[in-house]
Amino acid sequence: MSTFYVKPGISEKRKEYYGRLNKKNTAPLWEVLGKLVTPYPQPECVPALWKYSDVRPLLLESGDLITAQEAERRVMVLENPAMRGLSQITHSLYSGVQLVQPGEIAPSHRHAASALRFVLESSGAYTAVDGERTTMEPGDFILTPSWTFHDHGNPGDRPAIWLDGLDVPIVNMFGTSFAEHYPGETQEVTKSEGDAEARYGSNLLPVEYKPERPSAPVFNYRYSKSREALEQVRKNGPIDPSHGFKLQYINPATGGPPMPTIGAFLQLLPSGFTTRAYRSTDSTVFCPTEGTGRSTIGGQVFEWGKHDVFVVPSWCTVSHSADSADVVLFSFSDRPGQKSLGLWREESVEE
Amino acid sequence: MSTFYVKPGISEKRKEYYGRLNKKNTAPLWEVLGKLVTPYPQPECVPALWKYSDVRPLLLESGDLITAQEAERRVMVLENPAMRGLSQITHSLYSGVQLVQPGEIAPSHRHAASALRFVLESSGAYTAVDGERTTMEPGDFILTPSWTFHDHGNPGDRPAIWLDGLDVPIVNMFGTSFAEHYPGETQEVTKSEGDAEARYGSNLLPVEYKPERPSAPVFNYRYSKSREALEQVRKNGPIDPSHGFKLQYINPATGGPPMPTIGAFLQLLPSGFTTRAYRSTDSTVFCPTEGTGRSTIGGQVFEWGKHDVFVVPSWCTVSHSADSADVVLFSFSDRPGQKSLGLWREESVEE
Amino acid sequence: MSTFYVKPGISEKRKEYYGRLNKKNTAPLWEVLGKLVTPYPQPECVPALWKYSDVRPLLLESGDLITAQEAERRVMVLENPAMRGLSQITHSLYSGVQLVQPGEIAPSHRHAASALRFVLESSGAYTAVDGERTTMEPGDFILTPSWTFHDHGNPGDRPAIWLDGLDVPIVNMFGTSFAEHYPGETQEVTKSEGDAEARYGSNLLPVEYKPERPSAPVFNYRYSKSREALEQVRKNGPIDPSHGFKLQYINPATGGPPMPTIGAFLQLLPSGFTTRAYRSTDSTVFCPTEGTGRSTIGGQVFEWGKHDVFVVPSWCTVSHSADSADVVLFSFSDRPGQKSLGLWREESVEE
Amino acid sequence: MSTFYVKPGISEKRKEYYGRLNKKNTAPLWEVLGKLVTPYPQPECVPALWKYSDVRPLLLESGDLITAQEAERRVMVLENPAMRGLSQITHSLYSGVQLVQPGEIAPSHRHAASALRFVLESSGAYTAVDGERTTMEPGDFILTPSWTFHDHGNPGDRPAIWLDGLDVPIVNMFGTSFAEHYPGETQEVTKSEGDAEARYGSNLLPVEYKPERPSAPVFNYRYSKSREALEQVRKNGPIDPSHGFKLQYINPATGGPPMPTIGAFLQLLPSGFTTRAYRSTDSTVFCPTEGTGRSTIGGQVFEWGKHDVFVVPSWCTVSHSADSADVVLFSFSDRPGQKSLGLWREESVEE
Repeated sequence: MSTFYVKPGISEKRKEYYGRLNKKNTAPLWEVLGKLVTPYPQPECVPALWKYSDVRPLLLESGDLITAQEAERRVMVLENPAMRGLSQITHSLYSGVQLVQPGEIAPSHRHAASALRFVLESSGAYTAVDGERTTMEPGDFILTPSWTFHDHGNPGDRPAIWLDGLDVPIVNMFGTSFAEHYPGETQEVTKSEGDAEARYGSNLLPVEYKPERPSAPVFNYRYSKSREALEQVRKNGPIDPSHGFKLQYINPATGGPPMPTIGAFLQLLPSGFTTRAYRSTDSTVFCPTEGTGRSTIGGQVFEWGKHDVFVVPSWCTVSHSADSADVVLFSFSDRPGQKSLGLWREESVEE
Repeated sequence: MSTFYVKPGISEKRKEYYGRLNKKNTAPLWEVLGKLVTPYPQPECVPALWKYSDVRPLLLESGDLITAQEAERRVMVLENPAMRGLSQITHSLYSGVQLVQPGEIAPSHRHAASALRFVLESSGAYTAVDGERTTMEPGDFILTPSWTFHDHGNPGDRPAIWLDGLDVPIVNMFGTSFAEHYPGETQEVTKSEGDAEARYGSNLLPVEYKPERPSAPVFNYRYSKSREALEQVRKNGPIDPSHGFKLQYINPATGGPPMPTIGAFLQLLPSGFTTRAYRSTDSTVFCPTEGTGRSTIGGQVFEWGKHDVFVVPSWCTVSHSADSADVVLFSFSDRPGQKSLGLWREESVEE
Repeated sequence: MSTFYVKPGISEKRKEYYGRLNKKNTAPLWEVLGKLVTPYPQPECVPALWKYSDVRPLLLESGDLITAQEAERRVMVLENPAMRGLSQITHSLYSGVQLVQPGEIAPSHRHAASALRFVLESSGAYTAVDGERTTMEPGDFILTPSWTFHDHGNPGDRPAIWLDGLDVPIVNMFGTSFAEHYPGETQEVTKSEGDAEARYGSNLLPVEYKPERPSAPVFNYRYSKSREALEQVRKNGPIDPSHGFKLQYINPATGGPPMPTIGAFLQLLPSGFTTRAYRSTDSTVFCPTEGTGRSTIGGQVFEWGKHDVFVVPSWCTVSHSADSADVVLFSFSDRPGQKSLGLWREESVEE
Repeated sequence: MSTFYVKPGISEKRKEYYGRLNKKNTAPLWEVLGKLVTPYPQPECVPALWKYSDVRPLLLESGDLITAQEAERRVMVLENPAMRGLSQITHSLYSGVQLVQPGEIAPSHRHAASALRFVLESSGAYTAVDGERTTMEPGDFILTPSWTFHDHGNPGDRPAIWLDGLDVPIVNMFGTSFAEHYPGETQEVTKSEGDAEARYGSNLLPVEYKPERPSAPVFNYRYSKSREALEQVRKNGPIDPSHGFKLQYINPATGGPPMPTIGAFLQLLPSGFTTRAYRSTDSTVFCPTEGTGRSTIGGQVFEWGKHDVFVVPSWCTVSHSADSADVVLFSFSDRPGQKSLGLWREESVEE
């Protein structure tokens, strides 16, 4: 990587001057320019992998240590190894694995941060948004958008576990955090299940509908439906050398991303397929939901299977390979935020 | 209706002057202003109804008089009684009822005009767009957008009949007609059935998808799916006093209308329900697809049943009533065109 | 021009059948398809030119025949020679030349139709919109957008004359005409002159401004400013072979057209320059404001000078030539409407 | 401020468990939830003021210590007192005061970060963007948008000084930094001065113009023009109790902000006027350019005059007062970024 900027030398005279600047809450740009403006992205985060076989038992153990109610949300935060203590999986995203035990409720609240839930295990747990409860099935992609009350409950008989993705670092960088509790543990249920999908997610909208928020009015993208779409697309091709067959979840009321800050994707790599080396500026969190394989990320190889979580940092070259069975990868990133701000780039990498 | 403008009187001197204007391809505005600029819409078209029991036998009879190939499209145009000879159902829309007999093909062509097909009868007929054939089922809402090649075929054993809606008068008023034939009777089939719906109509889109045209990339909105959405919405309410339960078909890549000039709607009126008097500037073509009822349009009562077609002219007050069974009404109009141009108005009418 | 469609033959049996169709307000499409759907635009209007030396004396004569108040608007409508009696200069646009005599007022009204005024002669006349009066100077491009009250007055001592352009045929085709008078001859003046341009047209907008209508909040685009911009652009180039130096008037609150249906343009052809043959689907009305020259329109040559008006129909090939002095052409068309509806096309024509 | 979240107690068992989580790059959310998700914005930055009388002499002194070329950019960074060492004036913005001495050049480079320059002192210095050099006059608001080459030069005989505002913290939070040098000290000049303003900033645009970047194609908003607009608006009113007379700079090709991440504003407070208490989530940097006055920011009073710089943090209540002369305040913030991401809020504060 070429150097964009060479720091000037230091002298006694300059040092003395810097000291005087310092007293006035000022500093010489030329001492830090190379750190502030880099020729290529130099994200703080590094490639990393969390094995579900490590995470799951630890998470279940927490079920005995603290109740969902005491914890508000019983979550193991996935911290990027290069950013420990900051509760971040990348420079711009928070991610964690959440557990709701049978009979428990994660109480209703809302916040400026936007959240997605990718369901790993569930038999009858639900997420409630906009007065509707949606049953969480494995593979479902669920939204709890900015400033919408949401609660989770598990009336089933097995633990419910899902991957959380939030834009907390973005919200906090902008200094725009708001949060409040619902006056009650769970929000009032005013609609039967399936209302949002029928009303907003069937290639129809209520007559003269005007969106009230930038995020999607549907909040559960069922895995059964998304997976079927992926299969159909695979049948007709063509396959993308960099991505296999890859779809992005959308807000059907705009055609844009489901939430303004976070995008999510579902892709299928046929068995034995290896993607062409590629990089983009949106550091991305992956969670395989079918099959096993490996990813080469910035030269490092990571082997993964179902429900593992791994991270590809900004501008880091990645290539994924599927083992003998077809692989389905769920992923999410801050791409919509970057695109709105004119910052996103991607490229195929010559090897 | 109040008068906006009173024409000035005529004198010999003025008459002589008008004659001289006339020779220079000019004319006095004050002689025609009241006709050009009216205080309220005074559309040429009138309320009208076509009974399917009249239309169907006549249409089937045409099957023996002319082949689909000779006719290019074997269609009975529905002409507004006040606009005979103009091939228009309203001032801005064309509508007709089309027949494709078993074994026939309506050859592939494309034109600047946008078309919708609302399927009345079919067992195995298809419409082909973008290299995909979609099987036409009764109630399906099908698009053949502007400048897309499309052909229809009927490999089934019963006649296929559908309602056509096109923006031909709009295209011609703007002077923007283009048309050409496909080099072959049917376009090449390059995708298996269901591709467009999977790829673009499942609340997902291909990664980094950029629309190539303003009309929707999905081209069959299945009745089974739309009807189920309507039922779900009905279950959760609320009911709209002017419309019952009413949804609009959308382009899932934008959240906007399926085609830039024509919008389409599906609405359910519970048995016994009467809508509040309402009017809007988009003259609308209705086609009941379930149930029977009556509409009061500008004071005139029209009784209708399944597959009848009726028209509500611009700014004409309408109220619909459902008989004993639930009613489902399909309708289409030029509302999206009017909205893009800042011309659309609607209001609830005090009785 | 190739034929898109060949009409089938007629037989006695068919004739009899058509008669029965006719009784049910229906008609066979195959008898008219070729007329409805043409391979290329076949607009009703033809190329035409109105000499200002013809128009001006006739218009001034009307000043003695009828008052502005009696006429509501004292206008000589420019009627396309192929569309006499329809008050249209093209299939989609109305145009006329308006006179307000010293001391007269054209009373305040509003209508759904959008209007532009291109000032030919004026010394102190004004147009009032949104509570502000703007002094009309020759070459100024003035808007009186849809549903805004507007009145014109002439406190000066010489006749004020301008070219009007309205979308009346579009509004009427859609069946969306509304009109009403202001309760008084002139609207109340609530702002000093220049307010709209300062507030909305200086590359600034009021903080957190939300447009209230699709048309521009500025309503006078001063010739002095536009002409200077044109000169600056000419200095830096490059010149466009089809258009010379050509700018389009915009709505500064959106970057889009000044009104949703009508676009307007100002172009400079350096002395001796001839544009490359070109055609587009938006029939266009031209009004030279500086210099003299000629246009070849569909093979016909029209010579023009200052304040003449000429029309180039849809898809008709045109080339303009400037005589010895630089030429400035003002023009307007329905291009924004066509673009919103996905209908606009243009091309350079091989000669 | 109410507490949103109470941290659960700690036990030996929990402690031991947290230790094991730590080894797997995970952490318990409930230990940090209250820090991550706050009920109201709790920005890191604090209200602060930099007196120009302090900044100017120190900056001029740097002119002898380091050349513009050695420094690349000779800037005193304004560091928020609560965020020293981070080169940030707020959590999301960088700001500094830049000096170019007579005869010097700040060499041409480009970067993903967007920059604005608000000119404090200049006699003949220029900024070059898109092949055009614009002369910098005091009060001019100048853009050097993301990924555009830009260089500054001072052929005049007095120092040129301006306030810089950049979105460096946003670009780096997203991990999207790119930068490179121009192959040469200054970019090639291909257009005469005034081209961009004429071409894009005169309420006209080149015919069929398609923006190539999200930021404005004009890059100098002249103070003389903006100030005149402000005066005109002041004449016609009304005055906004929270803002006086306040305009926002726009991108005339879209009506949106000049750059996707940073917005800028110019407001006039009549002499003696005090604004109503107000707060918004966009931490804002102010620079008075006319008059003197004081601001109460979060209860603290800051007195300011021409060219001082002060900061109002996110959600911090502010009220400004003008002294005896009219005050003009320039300000900038990350509001456009917040709005694109659905995060911006504002409110009038009850006192």
